[in-house]
Amino acid sequence: MIRLNCDYSEGAHPLILEKLAQTNMEQLPGYGQDTYCLQAADLIKQLCHAPQADVHFISGGTQTNLTVLAALLRPYQCVLSPDTGHINVHETGAIEMTGHRIWTLPHTDGKITAEQITRACKTHWQDDNPEFAPQPKVVYISFPTEFGTLYTKKELYDLRRACDENHLYLFMDGARLGYGLAATGNDITWEDIAACCDAFYIGGTKLGALLGEAVVLTNPKIQQDFRYIMKQRGAILAKGRILGIQFLTLLQDDLYLKLAAHANQLALQIRDACQNAGLKFLYNSPTNQQFVIMPNALLKKLEQLYAFSHIAPLERNQTAVRICTSWATPPSDVEQFVSDLKRLTEN
Amino acid sequence: MIRLNCDYSEGAHPLILEKLAQTNMEQLPGYGQDTYCLQAADLIKQLCHAPQADVHFISGGTQTNLTVLAALLRPYQCVLSPDTGHINVHETGAIEMTGHRIWTLPHTDGKITAEQITRACKTHWQDDNPEFAPQPKVVYISFPTEFGTLYTKKELYDLRRACDENHLYLFMDGARLGYGLAATGNDITWEDIAACCDAFYIGGTKLGALLGEAVVLTNPKIQQDFRYIMKQRGAILAKGRILGIQFLTLLQDDLYLKLAAHANQLALQIRDACQNAGLKFLYNSPTNQQFVIMPNALLKKLEQLYAFSHIAPLERNQTAVRICTSWATPPSDVEQFVSDLKRLTEN
Amino acid sequence: MIRLNCDYSEGAHPLILEKLAQTNMEQLPGYGQDTYCLQAADLIKQLCHAPQADVHFISGGTQTNLTVLAALLRPYQCVLSPDTGHINVHETGAIEMTGHRIWTLPHTDGKITAEQITRACKTHWQDDNPEFAPQPKVVYISFPTEFGTLYTKKELYDLRRACDENHLYLFMDGARLGYGLAATGNDITWEDIAACCDAFYIGGTKLGALLGEAVVLTNPKIQQDFRYIMKQRGAILAKGRILGIQFLTLLQDDLYLKLAAHANQLALQIRDACQNAGLKFLYNSPTNQQFVIMPNALLKKLEQLYAFSHIAPLERNQTAVRICTSWATPPSDVEQFVSDLKRLTEN
Amino acid sequence: MIRLNCDYSEGAHPLILEKLAQTNMEQLPGYGQDTYCLQAADLIKQLCHAPQADVHFISGGTQTNLTVLAALLRPYQCVLSPDTGHINVHETGAIEMTGHRIWTLPHTDGKITAEQITRACKTHWQDDNPEFAPQPKVVYISFPTEFGTLYTKKELYDLRRACDENHLYLFMDGARLGYGLAATGNDITWEDIAACCDAFYIGGTKLGALLGEAVVLTNPKIQQDFRYIMKQRGAILAKGRILGIQFLTLLQDDLYLKLAAHANQLALQIRDACQNAGLKFLYNSPTNQQFVIMPNALLKKLEQLYAFSHIAPLERNQTAVRICTSWATPPSDVEQFVSDLKRLTEN
Repeated sequence: MIRLNCDYSEGAHPLILEKLAQTNMEQLPGYGQDTYCLQAADLIKQLCHAPQADVHFISGGTQTNLTVLAALLRPYQCVLSPDTGHINVHETGAIEMTGHRIWTLPHTDGKITAEQITRACKTHWQDDNPEFAPQPKVVYISFPTEFGTLYTKKELYDLRRACDENHLYLFMDGARLGYGLAATGNDITWEDIAACCDAFYIGGTKLGALLGEAVVLTNPKIQQDFRYIMKQRGAILAKGRILGIQFLTLLQDDLYLKLAAHANQLALQIRDACQNAGLKFLYNSPTNQQFVIMPNALLKKLEQLYAFSHIAPLERNQTAVRICTSWATPPSDVEQFVSDLKRLTEN
Repeated sequence: MIRLNCDYSEGAHPLILEKLAQTNMEQLPGYGQDTYCLQAADLIKQLCHAPQADVHFISGGTQTNLTVLAALLRPYQCVLSPDTGHINVHETGAIEMTGHRIWTLPHTDGKITAEQITRACKTHWQDDNPEFAPQPKVVYISFPTEFGTLYTKKELYDLRRACDENHLYLFMDGARLGYGLAATGNDITWEDIAACCDAFYIGGTKLGALLGEAVVLTNPKIQQDFRYIMKQRGAILAKGRILGIQFLTLLQDDLYLKLAAHANQLALQIRDACQNAGLKFLYNSPTNQQFVIMPNALLKKLEQLYAFSHIAPLERNQTAVRICTSWATPPSDVEQFVSDLKRLTEN
Repeated sequence: MIRLNCDYSEGAHPLILEKLAQTNMEQLPGYGQDTYCLQAADLIKQLCHAPQADVHFISGGTQTNLTVLAALLRPYQCVLSPDTGHINVHETGAIEMTGHRIWTLPHTDGKITAEQITRACKTHWQDDNPEFAPQPKVVYISFPTEFGTLYTKKELYDLRRACDENHLYLFMDGARLGYGLAATGNDITWEDIAACCDAFYIGGTKLGALLGEAVVLTNPKIQQDFRYIMKQRGAILAKGRILGIQFLTLLQDDLYLKLAAHANQLALQIRDACQNAGLKFLYNSPTNQQFVIMPNALLKKLEQLYAFSHIAPLERNQTAVRICTSWATPPSDVEQFVSDLKRLTEN
Repeated sequence: MIRLNCDYSEGAHPLILEKLAQTNMEQLPGYGQDTYCLQAADLIKQLCHAPQADVHFISGGTQTNLTVLAALLRPYQCVLSPDTGHINVHETGAIEMTGHRIWTLPHTDGKITAEQITRACKTHWQDDNPEFAPQPKVVYISFPTEFGTLYTKKELYDLRRACDENHLYLFMDGARLGYGLAATGNDITWEDIAACCDAFYIGGTKLGALLGEAVVLTNPKIQQDFRYIMKQRGAILAKGRILGIQFLTLLQDDLYLKLAAHANQLALQIRDACQNAGLKFLYNSPTNQQFVIMPNALLKKLEQLYAFSHIAPLERNQTAVRICTSWATPPSDVEQFVSDLKRLTEN
């Protein structure tokens, strides 16, 4: 059984384990104040051309999302998000538990537009009693989206402009950031992200780390006392070093983007094979997640050999599945899949 | 500079790194549902003679405390804790952020008594309007305490009885559990803890793991939907395997207690050396943390060679410091310290 | 200017003011434990044939909604509501502030169906990881709805059955309860409501009281410690008497329903007049709120004489407005409106 | 039985009921935006010489405290309070439910000092990791205190200075404000309070109103979006008029202070009578609450005629009780008490 259902089936990239082992017996300060965290933070600030940014390391995505939004929102403020946003569909109401509504906007290919944001804000502020509804203050987007799709540079700068015009913060969930940056056709750079977002994070868990997300706060107004908010949410690891070491390893020599490119390339092979087999897709994704529509009969056969994520049952005995590659996927697995798919669909 | 200031200065025990490397490329389910988590949970249930218990793995102590208390308390209920409890002094109000008051009771050597609990409950329930104050529902204790001291078996069973009589849950913070269980003179067993506590956790971060605490819910009434509460607090790691693998390694062949015994033994050497040098202690600790009162002149000299944690400035030019050993402390470091102390205090 | 924009433009029914004056200098216990609160509670229990119910008095609707939901939900649970529910559109995210998501279901005439509830629960529980989404636990409905429409007895019992089958509580917002009970064509009784709902409230603010809602908890499982939750939310008035006295006055001799019938009857006169003038309605309401679609030119003229609530601008130069009567509306005001409308639309 | 146990046993001052009746059928906007609320707010701003202040009306004290503190604190910040503060002892953990710790300082006669505040802040900021504890941001005091005692003008200005030096807000709970302002020996004015406090409130419930507290936000930095926070906590009454009308009535022609002076004078008669009878006091209060130590035998006899609040059982068969007068206490009741006490203690 080959697991193509997600991008966190394996442990960490071997270089990370090596570096953890090498540094293991060094005595270092705790709570993210060690030299590796500092070096990783510096490296990130250089990558992003954002010398004034603050960088923090947090264990996982849900914790990062709730911590950042706790920092950005006053109690009555809400966050605008595509209805398919991770905070809306996979986090057990963590944002509501933090006290805030998610104002969902209908997505197109996992994305929302500057126009939608402006319209939502207009709706809020034109009400006779705006104080009877949560006040929009943050826009949450993902890059790549939950469906592997990408904002264009123009779309991102348009979102920034809409945020400026409506006094909103822009927060990017980058749980799979590398896959987006490394994608064929992507025109967004580290620098664009830092320039457009008040806060974003660089996902490690889904791109080669054991665990960890690197939060970048580019807007100085939201930097104050962020560590209080982290600590209060249990988001400061005692041995912060293990996050710093991992990000340092991933971001040196562009390893992070190389691993992403590897995964993306294999995903495109899968995409091509599916297209050749006459299958359709829910979304047109250039990254490591492919959302394929399969006849149930074919799916049943493939699932004897491969694990996928089921997204939704569809009409006419079809099912939408997510097929995922990762930094860890061996090319031979994909070749095998391509060959199996061909065999099963040629008959 | 030798760091004796805490027990989380190094990475993980080498066997853990080895096991992480060995299993690294296995494809496993996420979110704590892999075979290693299941095996570690089984091992813990066997150790504790608690087959009906539920075991969950969480990254760190603050997150564990707030997650467990979120599960145990209704919105208006509070937790009784020694005023020196970790939840009261080192967690940035995480419990209050979760909506609950900490009702602090004055500690004796870091501990509280069954009588204090009963008295507090009486105070609450005898009021004409008990509903005007938070209702006591959980007792939080640490074993060992923040000062390295231990409850006796009798004290623990007395607490259990007080909890039963007052309809309270007993929750033990075991961030340093092994150091207590392995201590000379300790008469409490794994089984006692599981029998007395509704919930407790086995600390990994401070005893040889990279990160991680193993929560044991022995009372079936509090087990329902615990994973919802974890997920909502960002406390389910995508790669849960790294917690399962670590606990499996630590708990096999009693490694956990052996590492603790190593640290405790070195701590007692430090204690003896300090006593021989005529120094006094804040508390009488049989575990890996020693709370020593030092003349500032001596401290200044020692701190050119060693790092300690400052606890409090005291009168007459003295300072209370915490000296900590760990699973990772080399005996040679302690020998060096003993010799340096002797040299500096003989003059 | 005659205000027909809402049903809380005046103070209280004169009998209430009289009773407040009569009892003013009596010395009574505070916090809802006076004889008037007890009498009012008894009267409500009799009305509802619910001797085992608990009754509490709270100042306003938002506070009631958030207090009841705080009592009914564990931290990770959510409430199902029509998307037009008051908790979703007029309460500044009070429910999210309490930590819970509102799972909105698309309304039909302000209502949701048993089928929608069952489908939502199925969606939740059939997921591979239900714990990654908020768990449905309460169904929130309004009677009458925000649009003045009514559930039928059959619909209400169907909702109850769906709740039973899915282990949900049913909570009815009765901010305008009387207008529904007194409506022509309504087939639901006090007893039906108490039999079907685990919790509901009888609205005073919008039906003749200065302020106040009477919460009825019919399900004994949710009664425990409710006063703690009230007090913690600031929902126990020191002079609880003023709520007890008002409800006692309103519910004696059926005053509450008589006032509602008065308002409903006037609303139907408005409805008929609008129909005669060829106007359309957003919803078909038999209660005191009428949602009328007006050409903007007509609206402009009418608004020189009357205040309405604007609901939404519509295409083709029309606007949807809410026209409201209340216990306090003089028949002459409605006659005047009917005549003015006729005059303005006949030309 | 004459109730001297609290100051909210009766309804409202007759002028209030009269004014409510007079204005009852006026059609007014809801939610605190009517002319009476506006007039009352203006009057308060004039009284306080604080033209830039914002004034809001809220139903009760607990709700006011939690709403104001929700507005003033970021999630990780805490409020300093005397351990006897109302928020700490009578509000079921409402502040913790709002997410914030109460950092209690030991009181002297119900008060805290500027030195205590400065010392607490020093403790916080001198820690190596201040972010591991809640950050002090607000000082909460009561005037008069829970024990009827008063800050002097010098003490109040000292508190202000300490707050300025430590970047804290000063928030005064004035649930019984009038009794303090009208007390013999008091040297604090409306203007002093507005000049020293960032926020405070004028209590109506305990001084002649049916319900209601008037919140005054003098610091422009905390005024923004306060109505959102009120609404989200259910603290905006639909018929806000009933709060505006009451405060307008109370504050016109100094009625508020006259009623307080009446109560204070009667309280001093009780105090004198107790002193003459050889009784001692817990605190030396110049206001309407007297804390008297009574032999249990005497208490038993008096309680056949009078209701008091029990504060605490004391050693040697004594009990501390609170005796309260109010705007509504008839002088004849106090004369009766004085005479009964004399009779019972002369034998």
